[in-house]
Amino acid sequence: MELNFRSDNESSAAPAIMAALAEANHGTAWAYAEDPLSELLDEAFSDLFGTGTTVVPLSSGTVANSIALACVTPPWGSVFCHRTAHIYNDESGAPEFFGNGLRLIPVDGAEGKVTANTLKQTIVAAEGHGVHSYVPSAISLTQSTESGTVYQPEEISSICAVATEKDLATHLDGARFGNAIAALACHPGDVSWKAGIQMMSFGASKNGCLTAEALLFFGRPELREKAERLRKRSGHLLSKMRYLAAQLLAYIDNDLWLKLAAQANQQAARFSYEVAQHPTARLEYPVHANEVFVKWTAGGFAKLEESGVQFLVWPGRNDLARFVFSHCTSNEETATLCARLAEIGDG
Amino acid sequence: MELNFRSDNESSAAPAIMAALAEANHGTAWAYAEDPLSELLDEAFSDLFGTGTTVVPLSSGTVANSIALACVTPPWGSVFCHRTAHIYNDESGAPEFFGNGLRLIPVDGAEGKVTANTLKQTIVAAEGHGVHSYVPSAISLTQSTESGTVYQPEEISSICAVATEKDLATHLDGARFGNAIAALACHPGDVSWKAGIQMMSFGASKNGCLTAEALLFFGRPELREKAERLRKRSGHLLSKMRYLAAQLLAYIDNDLWLKLAAQANQQAARFSYEVAQHPTARLEYPVHANEVFVKWTAGGFAKLEESGVQFLVWPGRNDLARFVFSHCTSNEETATLCARLAEIGDG
Amino acid sequence: MELNFRSDNESSAAPAIMAALAEANHGTAWAYAEDPLSELLDEAFSDLFGTGTTVVPLSSGTVANSIALACVTPPWGSVFCHRTAHIYNDESGAPEFFGNGLRLIPVDGAEGKVTANTLKQTIVAAEGHGVHSYVPSAISLTQSTESGTVYQPEEISSICAVATEKDLATHLDGARFGNAIAALACHPGDVSWKAGIQMMSFGASKNGCLTAEALLFFGRPELREKAERLRKRSGHLLSKMRYLAAQLLAYIDNDLWLKLAAQANQQAARFSYEVAQHPTARLEYPVHANEVFVKWTAGGFAKLEESGVQFLVWPGRNDLARFVFSHCTSNEETATLCARLAEIGDG
Amino acid sequence: MELNFRSDNESSAAPAIMAALAEANHGTAWAYAEDPLSELLDEAFSDLFGTGTTVVPLSSGTVANSIALACVTPPWGSVFCHRTAHIYNDESGAPEFFGNGLRLIPVDGAEGKVTANTLKQTIVAAEGHGVHSYVPSAISLTQSTESGTVYQPEEISSICAVATEKDLATHLDGARFGNAIAALACHPGDVSWKAGIQMMSFGASKNGCLTAEALLFFGRPELREKAERLRKRSGHLLSKMRYLAAQLLAYIDNDLWLKLAAQANQQAARFSYEVAQHPTARLEYPVHANEVFVKWTAGGFAKLEESGVQFLVWPGRNDLARFVFSHCTSNEETATLCARLAEIGDG
Repeated sequence: MELNFRSDNESSAAPAIMAALAEANHGTAWAYAEDPLSELLDEAFSDLFGTGTTVVPLSSGTVANSIALACVTPPWGSVFCHRTAHIYNDESGAPEFFGNGLRLIPVDGAEGKVTANTLKQTIVAAEGHGVHSYVPSAISLTQSTESGTVYQPEEISSICAVATEKDLATHLDGARFGNAIAALACHPGDVSWKAGIQMMSFGASKNGCLTAEALLFFGRPELREKAERLRKRSGHLLSKMRYLAAQLLAYIDNDLWLKLAAQANQQAARFSYEVAQHPTARLEYPVHANEVFVKWTAGGFAKLEESGVQFLVWPGRNDLARFVFSHCTSNEETATLCARLAEIGDG
Repeated sequence: MELNFRSDNESSAAPAIMAALAEANHGTAWAYAEDPLSELLDEAFSDLFGTGTTVVPLSSGTVANSIALACVTPPWGSVFCHRTAHIYNDESGAPEFFGNGLRLIPVDGAEGKVTANTLKQTIVAAEGHGVHSYVPSAISLTQSTESGTVYQPEEISSICAVATEKDLATHLDGARFGNAIAALACHPGDVSWKAGIQMMSFGASKNGCLTAEALLFFGRPELREKAERLRKRSGHLLSKMRYLAAQLLAYIDNDLWLKLAAQANQQAARFSYEVAQHPTARLEYPVHANEVFVKWTAGGFAKLEESGVQFLVWPGRNDLARFVFSHCTSNEETATLCARLAEIGDG
Repeated sequence: MELNFRSDNESSAAPAIMAALAEANHGTAWAYAEDPLSELLDEAFSDLFGTGTTVVPLSSGTVANSIALACVTPPWGSVFCHRTAHIYNDESGAPEFFGNGLRLIPVDGAEGKVTANTLKQTIVAAEGHGVHSYVPSAISLTQSTESGTVYQPEEISSICAVATEKDLATHLDGARFGNAIAALACHPGDVSWKAGIQMMSFGASKNGCLTAEALLFFGRPELREKAERLRKRSGHLLSKMRYLAAQLLAYIDNDLWLKLAAQANQQAARFSYEVAQHPTARLEYPVHANEVFVKWTAGGFAKLEESGVQFLVWPGRNDLARFVFSHCTSNEETATLCARLAEIGDG
Repeated sequence: MELNFRSDNESSAAPAIMAALAEANHGTAWAYAEDPLSELLDEAFSDLFGTGTTVVPLSSGTVANSIALACVTPPWGSVFCHRTAHIYNDESGAPEFFGNGLRLIPVDGAEGKVTANTLKQTIVAAEGHGVHSYVPSAISLTQSTESGTVYQPEEISSICAVATEKDLATHLDGARFGNAIAALACHPGDVSWKAGIQMMSFGASKNGCLTAEALLFFGRPELREKAERLRKRSGHLLSKMRYLAAQLLAYIDNDLWLKLAAQANQQAARFSYEVAQHPTARLEYPVHANEVFVKWTAGGFAKLEESGVQFLVWPGRNDLARFVFSHCTSNEETATLCARLAEIGDG
């Protein structure tokens, strides 16, 4: 049995999402996001978040993050983010491209998290001298983080308080937001707008959709125009936006997104329990959501790979590996993984 | 009976495309275009075109055009295109965005077509004086054109000969390429690489797909790297590219794209015949593919609209309207349209 | 005797400007435009124009034009200008570079001038459809024009009225503004802020300075910050800005700029009189300032060149040539030119 | 007696440079760098460096650095530099602007210097994964450094060897290159092209010129065209380039640049000796060129300021201050500074 825990990006789409696509595929519909499904998005997300929400549907998390940051950051502005952030490491400069040369400034922090204190120090160190320096303009957090941990509402609030003090806009990269909310069992507003977040990427592709993401603005409707201009100029205003809207609406309907995320999280929890019992493997970070980082021997990882398990040995680190669980990871697959780990023993 | 001839952008997807999506939706697959379906694309399109073809799948025609042009044009280079071209009028500066400030220079021409002579004159007039001027760098043609006409192979060859003489790269915007090939009943290579075209946007969304397009390079494989970098930086490298590949493969399998286009073209031909018989309505341009431009009275158009027919009255012209037919326009719909036009009489 | 009428760009600097440089060259002075001379600029130009004026000193007209336009035009905005404008033909896309891909749209018009009517028609034709199209954002006029003509105050007022109606910002490229004011014998405000111009490039290099230009804002002080950011990011905030300020202050002191321009204009007038008397040479445009465009035979121009006179045969036109007169053209040089033209006779 | 040691940017121009300007100011000369003086530059600098050198004269160090880096770095490329580098801290993103969103990656290192080892580690950590990551593309060193130290030839060689191994282009920011060469008493080629440097900014404004700098390419003449395009598009191709050329030619004629730098260095050496003798003040870094960083008490610095001495208390550090000596610092001024420091005693 081949088992794949490389990334939730490799999962397939949920049946309900496929059904929604099929249902949307009847008759003609206005192009360029003027169709009836697209027009339901603002209300649907406003209901979900419990506040007025502006929705700009998009095809990838990279473009959602980049447009958000470009909307609030001048070319001579800087954006602060954790050193492991996707926008800093994995988007090949998309924020810099959309933002016409804005600068990302990495912030250090344990377990993938920015803290209010470190953020403040990093901002102060970057403030510089007038026209010669970048202007601190935005902070971007990732929820759940790139280390598989989840920010508590009060952590986000304290970070956003620093942002407010320093006049920075606040952004959340929610590529795995569903996993975070399923883990926190809180209202989605608690770690977004209620905590001070002004805009976010609402991830959907990793958790059951095909190619749909959404950029959300809370209480800043004036940013919609700039976002829509950037969407058009970057080729992301598709003619048949109804197929994105259909995915997004089905994704949040009847808590589907949370059910899918919960399935993924449960598998991760199950596996993390196994790792914790293991004689030599160790958890590198607390497991809050659907990612498990395991510290072990290179030999142990090699044996696990030979047994038919796929996962990501961390670049530059042969003693660390990431296992990601998705909505379509079955209980049986996880059980098999656990059994193989146990079997290999001390590596 | 409501009838919609506003745009083929408003059509739904073909059943075979939906089936391909469903079939692709099993198990896990490598992300970011390293999946098995994506890896079939180069060979499938090379077979279709009869020459080595590099395929970069994308989500919209706008991004396909923009990346193509940015690959061959420096920021201080200019791109020539027909004055009615989509890249000039309908992409809000996407080519300028991807090309970091390149310039589009419109070329005049009857029936939506650039001619070799006019192109040459326009290039010469733009050549300027050294470092002070933009450098003529590329020509972009549209097939079928924005006026619903189709270039013959020898027309494209003669234009590409000018390009060669002036050291310009050659691009084809093939948003309705299927309609052109169905109309010409020629090999797709005859109006592309054999005629001197180096790269093209292979349209699919208007003719049966959901959100898939492809950027093709003929004989210039060295451009792939730059194209893929721009795809990533613009947020168009989706995590689940298999869903684009599945659409594209099904689209060209067993001539599906030509069958769908032929259905659209036949409806347009049927309606153009009706217009030609009409006492007062006139065809503005020859009808070669799936678009019909009708010159008539404002009153006539108003009555047709009141009868439940939707179409595009041309911006700034109340005596001109565009009717577009798609792969899902039925014979019955076209017959009804024809009957209503005839019924209204002289408007 | 060699005579050079190719361009006022080739003239040397006026003695008073050199003297001002020498005077500024004592002791230390704060860098980056915080020196005492730089701090005099706003007041000096406000006095000159009779209204509150914000001055951003720069080194070239190209950068002054480009920063001005970028301050008021989003990347998806368009700027209207005469088809012969320097920003359109001679700046290799500097406005597009500073403006991150904005678009210039040429306006036709006789004698180098935009008219209110043609401008309005061109704007209306460019308005397009929402997010798919560039947004008309600014108009740029050239005074004196690239054809050597000068706009009257009421011409500029009527154009600015169209701009106001269409919500466009207004810019003047004043590379030869001194020549225009010397010709009009009006107050410099009459063809700038009083006529509706919001910002302008105040040319100085062509008319007696070494490398100094100034970007002026009338009544829009909020644009200073963006302009100064762009100046810094483009490498135009020199460490020793005092040497630019010194030139600019001397240039407007005691009407020096108008005296220099008057000298140039008088020479042009003298020569245009000679052309008007000539049996076969003709004036292509009215001569208002310091440029004379002559229509003649290719043979005539060749003989004149052989006699030791340098001028610009127009690119692509062997029957048209431009003669430019500068502040350092002597009466004797002009007299010699006139004599040689007369001597050659009918060419 | 007021004494100013804030920055060599605040110094005035050397008499020989003013004389050269005056001498250049006769008659007409072709515009846009086609004048006879501009055409001497390549040969003059080739002679100075002892190798074929391509010269692009410019008005500021910021634009020279930015164009150099943009010539060798794609938008998706990264440039490594010391954490204190001017390009990283003081140019407000000019490299990012010219480079269309390239990324600067800071390298740590004592005394303002990058080491080969640390550079290599930083590059390896940044290499990332294919299209998702920036491509390491260039290294930029500063000579003399922002800490007032000077790289030895073998230090630069070893860094350039890493660059070669990793396929990075090599750039030197020589804003204070004259001070470095005067200190090293070596041939200018020894710490530039002979050590592996491919391009450099040859600083002149800080050391006796008014507003002149030069971008130099060693052995890469193919980069001239791109550099000249960027110069034009950024508004740095002045019409009267002869005034830049005149400064640069006079600056390197008869070793003027080294004589001026030596005067500055000697003053710094004199003061550093005084600091070394002082009971409580300390040198923060070795003093190799014309900058002295002093660690002392806030009270001591305050007393020195009260005595009429101006210098830069380091941002965010009240126990550190920078004193910069220039070509026009007199022996008497330095003696007075030393006396005042001694007088204040232990602060």
